[in-house]
Amino acid sequence: MMTVVEQSPAAVHGRVARVKARTNTRELLVRCGVEVFCELGFQATGIEELLKRVGVPKGSFYHFFDSKRDFGVAVVDKYAAYFEKKLRRSLEDESLQPLERIRAFVEDAKQGMAKFGFTRGCLVGNLSQELAGFDPQFRAQLEAVLRSWQGHTAACLQLAIDDGAIPAHFGAAALAEFFWIGWEGAILRAKLTQDVEPLESFAANFLRLAAA
Amino acid sequence: MMTVVEQSPAAVHGRVARVKARTNTRELLVRCGVEVFCELGFQATGIEELLKRVGVPKGSFYHFFDSKRDFGVAVVDKYAAYFEKKLRRSLEDESLQPLERIRAFVEDAKQGMAKFGFTRGCLVGNLSQELAGFDPQFRAQLEAVLRSWQGHTAACLQLAIDDGAIPAHFGAAALAEFFWIGWEGAILRAKLTQDVEPLESFAANFLRLAAA
Repeated sequence: MMTVVEQSPAAVHGRVARVKARTNTRELLVRCGVEVFCELGFQATGIEELLKRVGVPKGSFYHFFDSKRDFGVAVVDKYAAYFEKKLRRSLEDESLQPLERIRAFVEDAKQGMAKFGFTRGCLVGNLSQELAGFDPQFRAQLEAVLRSWQGHTAACLQLAIDDGAIPAHFGAAALAEFFWIGWEGAILRAKLTQDVEPLESFAANFLRLAAA
Repeated sequence: MMTVVEQSPAAVHGRVARVKARTNTRELLVRCGVEVFCELGFQATGIEELLKRVGVPKGSFYHFFDSKRDFGVAVVDKYAAYFEKKLRRSLEDESLQPLERIRAFVEDAKQGMAKFGFTRGCLVGNLSQELAGFDPQFRAQLEAVLRSWQGHTAACLQLAIDDGAIPAHFGAAALAEFFWIGWEGAILRAKLTQDVEPLESFAANFLRLAAA
């Protein structure tokens, strides 16, 4: 049986405000982490730099996260959730044909890269490059994120196969895996060329080859 | 008219030995740079760490290189030359059919990645990720290296087109660009999975799609 403790409205309000502030601080830290890790990487980013940007004392950081690594895991989760939403917005857009949805995702990604002057790229790709060599836990997390994106892409490609827009023989899952392996390469290359050409060229050739 | 200065055999020998030692020290530093930059990246590697590995005093480093950046450029040149030789050994192997040559290169790359426990990857891909955001000179150098690799790959694919092994309509240059954009993604992904599967899968699908 639950015990109901009566509280004054002011006490309830105070507790709600504290919970809200706590949630906001954690959220602010993680959002800032996405931004800074995208730009500078994980190892090159100091916690101090992050706290300065958000305007939060050090103790507060360790209230929410056991370590920088623990924080990194939360940042990857945040980015993965944000990106999945973005990806599904294109790939599940029923106003478009399945292959047009992939083109819509590519257009969205092109704009995203151009917006930050081709410096940020994909956080999952960046951290794979930086951390895969020596951190098995990050490795598993990043691979799982890519597999989830592949899953959504495979579902969209399956619709294109069902519609007869691409032949069935390659298989939607194999095409989606191929796309995501190569797409992270295209993001990387766009950082070098500082333009959308590698993204455009990879996606166009992928769609031409898949439809052949 | 040239003036010939007579020198004792001992003096000539001494000078030759000094030139040789100097060449060797520079060569040793650059080779070690390739190794260490592949593993740890450019920014995370201290010059001191490098000097300790090679057993060379600091003054000697600055005798050969104006800065760490200048050294980085030499390291990329070294890696590019090494890799071009490796690539051409497969792609110009006249005992193999053109598409078999691409498969031979892929096999070679798989062994290379496995040899270092999937930690090193491709120095050009690694530095693209790390430095492209803020260093235009490295960016131009790295892009030129990738274009040169693409050129050798296009020449091999043109032979496959001439033989009728793949259809002409995609174009050898476009296929080679597509391959190299995606291949750097496959190297990156193999660091995550810690196995050759992404390399195998990307190459097999590339060849299947190109031949379709």
